[in-house]
Amino acid sequence: MKTIVLKQRPVGTPTLSDFELINSDMDLNPNKGELVLETTYVSVDPYLRGRMSDAKSYVPPFEVGKPLSSGIVAKVTASQNDHFKEGDYVVGMLDWKTKQISNGEGLLKVDGDKAPLSAYLGVLGMTGLTAYLGLTEIGKPKAGETLVVSGAAGAVGSVVGQIGKILGLNVVGIAGTDEKVEMLKSDFKFDHAINYNSTEDMGAALKKACPNGIDIYFDNVGGAISDAVLFNINRFARMIICGAISVYNSTEIPNSISVQPFLIKNSALMQGFIVSNYSDKFPQAMQQLATWLAEEKLSYSETIVEGFDSTPQAFLDLFEGKNKGKMIVKA
Amino acid sequence: MKTIVLKQRPVGTPTLSDFELINSDMDLNPNKGELVLETTYVSVDPYLRGRMSDAKSYVPPFEVGKPLSSGIVAKVTASQNDHFKEGDYVVGMLDWKTKQISNGEGLLKVDGDKAPLSAYLGVLGMTGLTAYLGLTEIGKPKAGETLVVSGAAGAVGSVVGQIGKILGLNVVGIAGTDEKVEMLKSDFKFDHAINYNSTEDMGAALKKACPNGIDIYFDNVGGAISDAVLFNINRFARMIICGAISVYNSTEIPNSISVQPFLIKNSALMQGFIVSNYSDKFPQAMQQLATWLAEEKLSYSETIVEGFDSTPQAFLDLFEGKNKGKMIVKA
Repeated sequence: MKTIVLKQRPVGTPTLSDFELINSDMDLNPNKGELVLETTYVSVDPYLRGRMSDAKSYVPPFEVGKPLSSGIVAKVTASQNDHFKEGDYVVGMLDWKTKQISNGEGLLKVDGDKAPLSAYLGVLGMTGLTAYLGLTEIGKPKAGETLVVSGAAGAVGSVVGQIGKILGLNVVGIAGTDEKVEMLKSDFKFDHAINYNSTEDMGAALKKACPNGIDIYFDNVGGAISDAVLFNINRFARMIICGAISVYNSTEIPNSISVQPFLIKNSALMQGFIVSNYSDKFPQAMQQLATWLAEEKLSYSETIVEGFDSTPQAFLDLFEGKNKGKMIVKA
Repeated sequence: MKTIVLKQRPVGTPTLSDFELINSDMDLNPNKGELVLETTYVSVDPYLRGRMSDAKSYVPPFEVGKPLSSGIVAKVTASQNDHFKEGDYVVGMLDWKTKQISNGEGLLKVDGDKAPLSAYLGVLGMTGLTAYLGLTEIGKPKAGETLVVSGAAGAVGSVVGQIGKILGLNVVGIAGTDEKVEMLKSDFKFDHAINYNSTEDMGAALKKACPNGIDIYFDNVGGAISDAVLFNINRFARMIICGAISVYNSTEIPNSISVQPFLIKNSALMQGFIVSNYSDKFPQAMQQLATWLAEEKLSYSETIVEGFDSTPQAFLDLFEGKNKGKMIVKA
């Protein structure tokens, strides 16, 4: 049985030496009410970087020397819990362990026949919920409006753009390679996509891609890309601040242009979005996402990395933009 | 008859040479439906700076060579309009002229017996409406929460803080002199006030003044003060971005710390606020403000400058913080 623990708090960009893989031999015998889980898929997500630091945030930080945790799909290999039986698959926030004991709390049974098991960590999981609820609850989209998505080829971004198209928006994606840009346009039917790495003047590129201005901005990256967006927002623009991967590894407090004058001039809104604040809307949202998936209106991409031991490396690769869509480790 | 026109668009901080006073002799004879107005009080406001530039904004820019305009209280000296008679006082957006003709559109009759005429440019006018609607519509205050107001000794800020007290909030004001700080505490009953000019570490000062963190920030200034606020906001904080006087005269696009990570961490909201977007709520809001004024729950301060010719100087003085409360010119 393997466990991955946080060896030390990363300073700036995390490295493999911040993690430690521990092998142990232990018999896992469930007591009454407990079940034994064998990890199938591990989700790695940019927001985990925040929990590796000691700063105050909306979730408590990971502890040094203790296992990390994230969304995991696991198989029930033994059960003393009435709600789960051997052979079931479940999804939940679980430790980075190949095997573990759970009391079943917070676990959701998933059906591998309805959708691939990995989808429950992506389009039918937190990723899809984040995309759908951020866009609808804060973005309040109206057909015909223009939506810009940063980190558009990422797990959340690619779903946001597709939902935007379903809702009748003009969708412009921003990503970091020509290959991703091509995927956004051909696979996900974005109206436009911009490679920020090969674009000198993002402001001008956005102006060209959004001749009617930007009504909604779904922001996964922050930094200079978000600055460029500000110059192109419309009156009453809504900006969903969902992630800021471009600055997560900063050791200094990052600077950018002052947003306040842009907000005033345009009566615009910026709101920090955390999907867990909207848990009362999860059932309706999951239903909608599953329907769109079944109707083939929604597709998704995954980057699946093989082997539980590769989990830290897969996490590090997120910051290099090596993933297309949801980054998942197959244990 | 005197008119003040915009001689040239200011670059950076405006100076007197950007304005021109023109004397003319003209008989003003009202046609059917028109009335003649004699200016009594002129409102000068920081937001006018924006209209002096050529940039796209929520109101069209002033034209070079044409009169400036702002909120004005005027006396009707002749009328061919059924809704107004000689001797009435009105308030409205009018040209910077000592006398002018109007068709009555957009003018509101005001009663000098109910409140001093100048109050209709302040606490019972756009100033009061901005304070009340910004705080209630975006701030959504709940008794016991902590409100921080920047530009607290200014026209809007001093009303915001008092309304905060009426609504049961802990109110902390930020202003630029010891005299203003004293006024906020003794005249306006703020719980705390901070002089940013004599405070080295605004972040620490705010932390001390707001032991339970900041739930609502009513921002009139932007810049470094707003940066310091971000470090002290609570989860679900609401930031009303009403003004950014600290950067209005910038010739370069101002920089500050990136707000996005703070918004994400705290599920916080920043919204640009323009009172004119809430015009459907004006009647109810004015009623509430008049009631509080009559009940002596609300007081206000004014800086009244004598002489129509002083209007440009009074406007310039806003950027030096020379006003306490609403800055008004008595024509």
